[in-house]
Amino acid sequence: MAKKVLIVGGVAGGASAAARLRRLDENAEIVMFERGPHISYANCGLPYYIGETIQDRSKLLVQTPESMKARFNLDIRIHSEVTRIDADAKTVTVNSKEKGVYKESYDYLILSPGAKPLKPPIPGIDSRLVYTLRTIPDMDRIKSHADQAGIRSAIVVGGGYIGVEMADNLRHRGLEVTLVEAAPHILAPFDSEMAAFAEKELEDNGVRLLLGDGVHSFVEKEGGIAVMLQSGKEACGDMVILAIGVAPDTGFLKDSGIRLGPRGHILVNESMQTDCDGVYAVGDAVEIVDYVTRQPSAIPLAGPANKQGRVAADHICGLPSTYKGTQGTAIIKLFDLAGASTGSNERTLSRLGIPYRTVYVHPSSHAAYYPGAKPIALKLIFNDEGKILGAQAFGAEGVDKRIDVIAAVLRMNGTVDDLAELELAYAPPFSSAKDPVNMAGYLAQNVLSGRSDVATLQELGSFDPERQILLDVRTKAEFDQGHIEGARHIPVDELRARCGELEQGKEIYAYCAVGMRGYIASRILQQKGFAVKNVTGGYRSYSMARYAPRN
Amino acid sequence: MAKKVLIVGGVAGGASAAARLRRLDENAEIVMFERGPHISYANCGLPYYIGETIQDRSKLLVQTPESMKARFNLDIRIHSEVTRIDADAKTVTVNSKEKGVYKESYDYLILSPGAKPLKPPIPGIDSRLVYTLRTIPDMDRIKSHADQAGIRSAIVVGGGYIGVEMADNLRHRGLEVTLVEAAPHILAPFDSEMAAFAEKELEDNGVRLLLGDGVHSFVEKEGGIAVMLQSGKEACGDMVILAIGVAPDTGFLKDSGIRLGPRGHILVNESMQTDCDGVYAVGDAVEIVDYVTRQPSAIPLAGPANKQGRVAADHICGLPSTYKGTQGTAIIKLFDLAGASTGSNERTLSRLGIPYRTVYVHPSSHAAYYPGAKPIALKLIFNDEGKILGAQAFGAEGVDKRIDVIAAVLRMNGTVDDLAELELAYAPPFSSAKDPVNMAGYLAQNVLSGRSDVATLQELGSFDPERQILLDVRTKAEFDQGHIEGARHIPVDELRARCGELEQGKEIYAYCAVGMRGYIASRILQQKGFAVKNVTGGYRSYSMARYAPRN
Repeated sequence: MAKKVLIVGGVAGGASAAARLRRLDENAEIVMFERGPHISYANCGLPYYIGETIQDRSKLLVQTPESMKARFNLDIRIHSEVTRIDADAKTVTVNSKEKGVYKESYDYLILSPGAKPLKPPIPGIDSRLVYTLRTIPDMDRIKSHADQAGIRSAIVVGGGYIGVEMADNLRHRGLEVTLVEAAPHILAPFDSEMAAFAEKELEDNGVRLLLGDGVHSFVEKEGGIAVMLQSGKEACGDMVILAIGVAPDTGFLKDSGIRLGPRGHILVNESMQTDCDGVYAVGDAVEIVDYVTRQPSAIPLAGPANKQGRVAADHICGLPSTYKGTQGTAIIKLFDLAGASTGSNERTLSRLGIPYRTVYVHPSSHAAYYPGAKPIALKLIFNDEGKILGAQAFGAEGVDKRIDVIAAVLRMNGTVDDLAELELAYAPPFSSAKDPVNMAGYLAQNVLSGRSDVATLQELGSFDPERQILLDVRTKAEFDQGHIEGARHIPVDELRARCGELEQGKEIYAYCAVGMRGYIASRILQQKGFAVKNVTGGYRSYSMARYAPRN
Repeated sequence: MAKKVLIVGGVAGGASAAARLRRLDENAEIVMFERGPHISYANCGLPYYIGETIQDRSKLLVQTPESMKARFNLDIRIHSEVTRIDADAKTVTVNSKEKGVYKESYDYLILSPGAKPLKPPIPGIDSRLVYTLRTIPDMDRIKSHADQAGIRSAIVVGGGYIGVEMADNLRHRGLEVTLVEAAPHILAPFDSEMAAFAEKELEDNGVRLLLGDGVHSFVEKEGGIAVMLQSGKEACGDMVILAIGVAPDTGFLKDSGIRLGPRGHILVNESMQTDCDGVYAVGDAVEIVDYVTRQPSAIPLAGPANKQGRVAADHICGLPSTYKGTQGTAIIKLFDLAGASTGSNERTLSRLGIPYRTVYVHPSSHAAYYPGAKPIALKLIFNDEGKILGAQAFGAEGVDKRIDVIAAVLRMNGTVDDLAELELAYAPPFSSAKDPVNMAGYLAQNVLSGRSDVATLQELGSFDPERQILLDVRTKAEFDQGHIEGARHIPVDELRARCGELEQGKEIYAYCAVGMRGYIASRILQQKGFAVKNVTGGYRSYSMARYAPRN
């Protein structure tokens, strides 16, 4: 007897599950319900159509209901909202634009309802000038507003991935853009000194940043809209994009008996099964296990959603696939820069009381002598056993590659020794003989072995000139162009001859531009009997950590 | 008592060892001998200076003797050739341009003599118009010849990495270039159907290829030079670049007692120690273990040389580093294309009798709906247990990233399941929700589980229309533009309705453009009771495998 599978939600996880199910079982009856008019659309592409980088709207419709039906023999029902689930009777209630309300039975049910933009009860939030972005119709509404004559400015509220992508894209099409974020920094997956690279890139490209300031209210005025901030500041523009986060779209499950987490996420096991017989859930609406911390988490990303859809389909068809957790690997383009991260950041690890260490390197994206090399800022987080816990990087070239390589090693439960030993593809246009990932591994090895004691930027905050010496080992020209206040200056190449100038009883914090010469200096001084730390990431990390948006 | 370390050879492995030694031991006496005038130069960059992509010659001199001495307190002796080693007395004999012949004693000796271009006894090979490329002076000679007025053409003999990079670079500066290779295909690390991508790119950019034809002799004539081939063909030009391979530069070791391999490579253990007390060897002159096959091998690459130098230095200083083998990860830029590989290819595995399987995928470098996506041709080689044995890829974007990720998983002894589960960084400008590496993993899983029986292109060679059906499942437009001879045509979306047209007793070879629709078709037909194989890589792989250079 052919199994009957209902799928709620026709994007990412749902579409992925449907296609996989059909490939595994030609006889299954597969019905896919989608509330909106579109299935399997490129939701990650929506900001780029608004920004006119993607110009052909039809390209966003990866599959139409017709094409997917033809290819996979699916019963696709658009404009059909599943409003209720009776897990005992194994039926769902559907509200169809075309057919009204009806019930449909299932042997298996896959829930992929996704997440919806948060819209807290802020005064004025229901203004027609406040937009959120989730679907193709949302996109069309935003773009058609932006296309109107006289629209010159926009305010993006929320500095997460979608907010920042919207700021980039609206700026790309020539609007004046202000980005408002309640937290002190944008892009929460990054630690603040790394997020500073993103903030600088946005400001360098004319985006006005208002950080550490929440929204008090929205007020329509003079044909536009003012965002009144909690500080009393006011940002005015022609439209607002609200992108302060998402919540699982699981309201319809509240009487179903399907167990939900504290914030409404569907709880599943590693086969993506809920606690109701035959019911699976995948995608942005489920709670998953954080791969690094093993804590419950919710990480709404397209890659995991697709993989989870596949696991659910496999399990329904008797294959032993499991989903082992989400490590949160993600990337964002900001103008000419890319920022990417994988695993945990310091903020998360501190909160959970998980001990960690960090190092920074600032290598070139490829051999420095070959044209076009760009600096990469790479931060590696690992524990005392050398296990990799996370990494973050910013740069104009090769950031995706380095984070992907580290993400792969992290997934394989690898260590900094593994990073050091990786044999990666080298020719001058692509990398260096020692790849940035190798360099990060080497530096971490030196730290763990005690050969290099590194100081983080935070430690410099409590610098005490009575007991400590801050030593700049760069060239005179570099020192003269800017240095950390209070630093003394001995170029590394003169250090052996001049180390007598340093007081033996004091602890030395050595720094250079990126950490390499600082490391050499620290090795020289350490072997001469000094207590010395290399300031990891050097003056470049220091400058970025001190970066403060102008507004 | 400070240890005294002599290093023979000041490039890559030697320079790397010297710097690491100093960082580990401020007191060691470190003497570095270099036969030529330069140390630590960018040998991988030489072709690009000749091609004028790199315009500032000084950038190739990563370290000068003066700068490296200042930074690392080394005794650097250029124009100093080590001609003999007395391993019992622990001395070397040096022939110095400045100081004549003398002996120097050591506690430890690190040999990093490198490899020299092969110059077999072919008639005319000593012509002043036949150049080889190893050092900066070699580069200067080639460039100054090419810079002369009236120099319009060059013949590159040898289709390895250096030969192909030279062809690319000489073409880049406007010369007519002919590339001669004795084997049927260029770039031996790639299997021939993959090398075809490189051959097509070279021809598309105006390089004339003469493959499967060895050199009989070189004859100077009319101010230029003719390369007489074994086929009787003749290629004429203004100069010849000879790049048919390298041999370890170990002639000076022949009476030293240091054990050499059958082709003259220095034999070392995993600490890079030779069998003589205190003597280490690193870089292109040593025999290493192939990481995949565990067979002895010699793989002259900059990355491994640097890592080996570090291991030798560590071991001398009492650290437990080991070198675990070379997997041969490498990459080459050819005009607008990149080709990269890691691990073993089919040729090597077949020769060693190691069983393997292959799949091909042809995904986009990033989301197809975001501008600039380019196809990647990715070949994955794995065994019956799913262990990754190797991978090869060609494409205009993102090839380096995918090979690096697979190289990392290979290094961690990972499987195709690991590739499928990797969580890589996705945003539309960088990748797809299912990365090409995931796709290759999925396909390999399907093959291993028996869900998809794939046919390789070789199998099509013995196609028998009496017993078999070749089925093109692409659209009519695609089919009409070109298909495999003898193929029948049913678009995948019509296959469920029209599969009655296919004879049940016959075995079906289904193919599409790249393998995706072919896979879906094979799943449909298999479940309807047909014996069916999906032609892996589809029409795109087929077209490339049939690619034959015009000459």
